[in-house]
Amino acid sequence: MTEDHRTPVTVVGLGSMGRALAEAFVDAGHLTTVWNRTATKAVPLVAKGAVHATDVRAAVEASPLVITCLTTFEDTRSALEPAAAALSGRALVTLNSGSPAGARAMAEWASGHAARFLAGAVKNVPAAVGAPDTLLYYSGDRTVFDEYETTLKVLGGDTVHLGAEHDLAALYEMAVGAMLLPTLVGFFQGAAAVQARGLEATSMVRFSAKWLDMIKSLLPLYAKEIDSGDYTDAASSVNLFLSGMAHDKDLTEETNVDTDWLAPLHELVKRAAAAGHGEHSVSALTEVLRTPAHNA
Amino acid sequence: MTEDHRTPVTVVGLGSMGRALAEAFVDAGHLTTVWNRTATKAVPLVAKGAVHATDVRAAVEASPLVITCLTTFEDTRSALEPAAAALSGRALVTLNSGSPAGARAMAEWASGHAARFLAGAVKNVPAAVGAPDTLLYYSGDRTVFDEYETTLKVLGGDTVHLGAEHDLAALYEMAVGAMLLPTLVGFFQGAAAVQARGLEATSMVRFSAKWLDMIKSLLPLYAKEIDSGDYTDAASSVNLFLSGMAHDKDLTEETNVDTDWLAPLHELVKRAAAAGHGEHSVSALTEVLRTPAHNA
Ligand SMILES: NC(=O)c1ccc[n+]([C@@H]2O[C@H](COP(=O)([O-])OP(=O)(O)OC[C@H]3O[C@@H](n4cnc5c(N)ncnc54)[C@H](OP(=O)(O)O)[C@@H]3O)[C@@H](O)[C@H]2O)c1
Ligand SMILES: NC(=O)c1ccc[n+]([C@@H]2O[C@H](COP(=O)([O-])OP(=O)(O)OC[C@H]3O[C@@H](n4cnc5c(N)ncnc54)[C@H](OP(=O)(O)O)[C@@H]3O)[C@@H](O)[C@H]2O)c1
Repeated sequence: MTEDHRTPVTVVGLGSMGRALAEAFVDAGHLTTVWNRTATKAVPLVAKGAVHATDVRAAVEASPLVITCLTTFEDTRSALEPAAAALSGRALVTLNSGSPAGARAMAEWASGHAARFLAGAVKNVPAAVGAPDTLLYYSGDRTVFDEYETTLKVLGGDTVHLGAEHDLAALYEMAVGAMLLPTLVGFFQGAAAVQARGLEATSMVRFSAKWLDMIKSLLPLYAKEIDSGDYTDAASSVNLFLSGMAHDKDLTEETNVDTDWLAPLHELVKRAAAAGHGEHSVSALTEVLRTPAHNA
Repeated sequence: MTEDHRTPVTVVGLGSMGRALAEAFVDAGHLTTVWNRTATKAVPLVAKGAVHATDVRAAVEASPLVITCLTTFEDTRSALEPAAAALSGRALVTLNSGSPAGARAMAEWASGHAARFLAGAVKNVPAAVGAPDTLLYYSGDRTVFDEYETTLKVLGGDTVHLGAEHDLAALYEMAVGAMLLPTLVGFFQGAAAVQARGLEATSMVRFSAKWLDMIKSLLPLYAKEIDSGDYTDAASSVNLFLSGMAHDKDLTEETNVDTDWLAPLHELVKRAAAAGHGEHSVSALTEVLRTPAHNA
């Protein structure tokens, strides 16, 4: 908010994502200093106008705002170690994936070197960096976010501060990300099923896309039920899913596709019904997930 | 295509969905005859201008196009039995859920009574019936679809004929629907995780919605890989998911949320890697789903 126009920025780590970040800053007219362990990766950026720091300490010293995009928090600390003393008073923003515990350890390290620290995540692919709709979220030092918000928005227009605790971005990352593998395997299973009939998986895509839109439209309602703990006004009940489970057997019989991976999901539905949630909304499955089976 | 303007239509079965179907026809100016086992359900429709047939046979005889929306195919046959002789030469369209085998049995029954048969599915909720974007798909007698396409589009603008085999709509229904429960449980798990930190599930919704959009954007590419069988140009590899699996343990440790249901998904990823798909696209999991574990 109060920052000078076009803050000088340093980007450390020039893999697929780090390179996209640095490019966005160069394109937006920021004085952009870059450093990467494998120096050759800086070459295309220098051709575009970035400054190549000869070592990581010089890179950190070049800007008040240092953004890292390495594989893990451990890699980030190990790469920054020779520049640790130079971090004092600067804003350090990490944009790698990692666990909440990893983010807390990073925050402790940053604090030990008197850096002002923000732990962020890019919720998209490198090609989407810089687009108005691209989401990045951050947690940690709010003053860093406020001071550099305009600069951070160069990376994506949908830029959010989640809260002061440094591990919140990692927590949301983990919570939101939990949908990915199950959703994809559901799609792959459907693809195998239509292929078993000699049809192309591609023929299913537009129906699956509409189906995901339908699921998306249900999320606000389910979240409201989960937050209130009131599952009684059920649009789709646990019992409806209980009776629908019979169809998964049909899928195996019709197409010889493996549906074994659904067994624990069926178990969750059965446990919800047994716990008295039969006529409740399917979102009551959340209550069962809070009670690990082995503790029940 | 060649039909007269506003074909008379009969709707049999006036539950939540059947009532919405009948209402759409009345609103569109079709002479609409209705019948339901529990007669009182016809009352609000008659008030809107529908004709209430006194028995199911009279209902069938009233229109060249008969649309049913009962719970199952078995219920549909049992309700239509007294009207079976009157079906000869008429177009019969079922809009209930059911298995491909159920659709084939229904087609056999319809053919035994010389009905021209189309088995369809409404891919949405009753409130969406009649909207331009609402998807309904049909399979079976193409001449019925062509003759009544304009009339069928009264129920939803996105109306598709999948092919001549009567069980195709049920097959797609099953294939596309396979994403629902896994996706929802992924969301519920995330909701439980943020709640374990004292945050509201609602705070996650807009991130989850964007995440589903991102997943949706990947489906055409994955379908193409699955259709071609060429998984070598991987945007996200099996190994990437393999290393990401470690984070599910973090989720349990951080939040005490049950992640046991993910174990068979992890197993699929491991089997894909073991089968040589490590550096291949994650869509190669489809190949593993085609090989049930107990047969491997
Ligand atoms: N790519 C995506 O689609 C995407 C999307 C969202 C989030 N992310 C996250 O962004 C982060 C980076 O991903 P990426 O795709 O850019 O990965 P990448 O292409 O593999 O690049 C990894 C980067 O980390 C550096 N690095 C790793 N270990 C190091 C160490 N010990 N010391 C110094 N440098 C080290 C590498 O340097 P060298 O060049 O010297 O090896 C390279 O610059 C990851 O946490 C990833 O999960 C990526
Ligand atoms: N509602 C939705 O969101 C939705 C969405 C997509 C697809 N569908 C599918 O549409 C179909 C109907 O769903 P719905 O929500 O309308 O169900 P519903 O509200 O429970 O209504 C069921 C209808 O079937 C009739 N019925 C059942 N068994 C019968 C029998 N043996 N003889 C005569 N009539 C019988 C009922 O008659 P009575 O009134 O006499 O009981 C009622 O008209 C189902 O296959 C469902 O899966 C529904």
